[in-house]
Amino acid sequence: MRTTRYLAVAAVALAACQASETQEQMQARIRAESDSARALIEQAAAAFGRLVSAGHADSLALMYAENAVLMPPNMPPATGRAAIRETFAGMLAGGPTTVHLAVGSVVANGPIAIESGRYHMTMQPPAPAPAMTDSGKYLVHWHRVDGAWRMAEDIWNSDVPVEAPAPARRR
Amino acid sequence: MRTTRYLAVAAVALAACQASETQEQMQARIRAESDSARALIEQAAAAFGRLVSAGHADSLALMYAENAVLMPPNMPPATGRAAIRETFAGMLAGGPTTVHLAVGSVVANGPIAIESGRYHMTMQPPAPAPAMTDSGKYLVHWHRVDGAWRMAEDIWNSDVPVEAPAPARRR
Repeated sequence: MRTTRYLAVAAVALAACQASETQEQMQARIRAESDSARALIEQAAAAFGRLVSAGHADSLALMYAENAVLMPPNMPPATGRAAIRETFAGMLAGGPTTVHLAVGSVVANGPIAIESGRYHMTMQPPAPAPAMTDSGKYLVHWHRVDGAWRMAEDIWNSDVPVEAPAPARRR
Repeated sequence: MRTTRYLAVAAVALAACQASETQEQMQARIRAESDSARALIEQAAAAFGRLVSAGHADSLALMYAENAVLMPPNMPPATGRAAIRETFAGMLAGGPTTVHLAVGSVVANGPIAIESGRYHMTMQPPAPAPAMTDSGKYLVHWHRVDGAWRMAEDIWNSDVPVEAPAPARRR
């Protein structure tokens, strides 16, 4: 009889917990998780900039999940770390490059997070070509695997209008 | 005394529930939530295509959250529904346009989801200009508000290389 009552009490307690988080609790938890993901993502953004300056395509690729998809503008997507490393190696072969990432919003819930932000980049091709600069926006889907955040999908595009092809001059 | 024991039983039950989901349970829940978000997002992708064909910038903007950010290539981001509506109106003013969205991966956890996919678009400017086509990739951050999924951030870029400006011909 007493056991039955204990079980009843346990059942009520567990039923209350099945209803689990209230909306407010969930929102508070997501805020807390987003804040702690943000701190790590800001470190990752700084590391990304250092690795670009150092020309380290290999280490850049390790910031991505094994089966990640890199989505650069004006070329097909690169799927998987090997393809991502090749893509960065190709980009960095153009000349000394700098990238600055400014983290904007970060939303995390459990093992997934979304970061948006802005980038500014410069590249110095061999002289006498002038330095190139570009600025734009990006969105990254992060995935936490074994406690480490890795980029699963990474896409960006420029704010700068495409120059219309110069009209061929004829006389 | 009996009350104390009931409380102890309830405390143990609740402690077990605090430990909450196992990894496996979480992954199963995320898979289930992703599947049901995907079904709705595929409907949204089809609706997006219909609204583009119909030239309905107003209705397109309603698919976005109030404070959403649209991140089109080669122009600055548009923040908020009014700016998003203006951006679509500007794009659709170029001529009859079609967009086909092919949903790729969808990951959802609670009120957030991330969708990646591919787009194919055509636009017919006033004759005699030829039809323009473009294909590329996109990433969308979805947010569920009051039971409805809305786009919070939407970015895309083309797979097609930018044409180098035609060299000016001189004789």
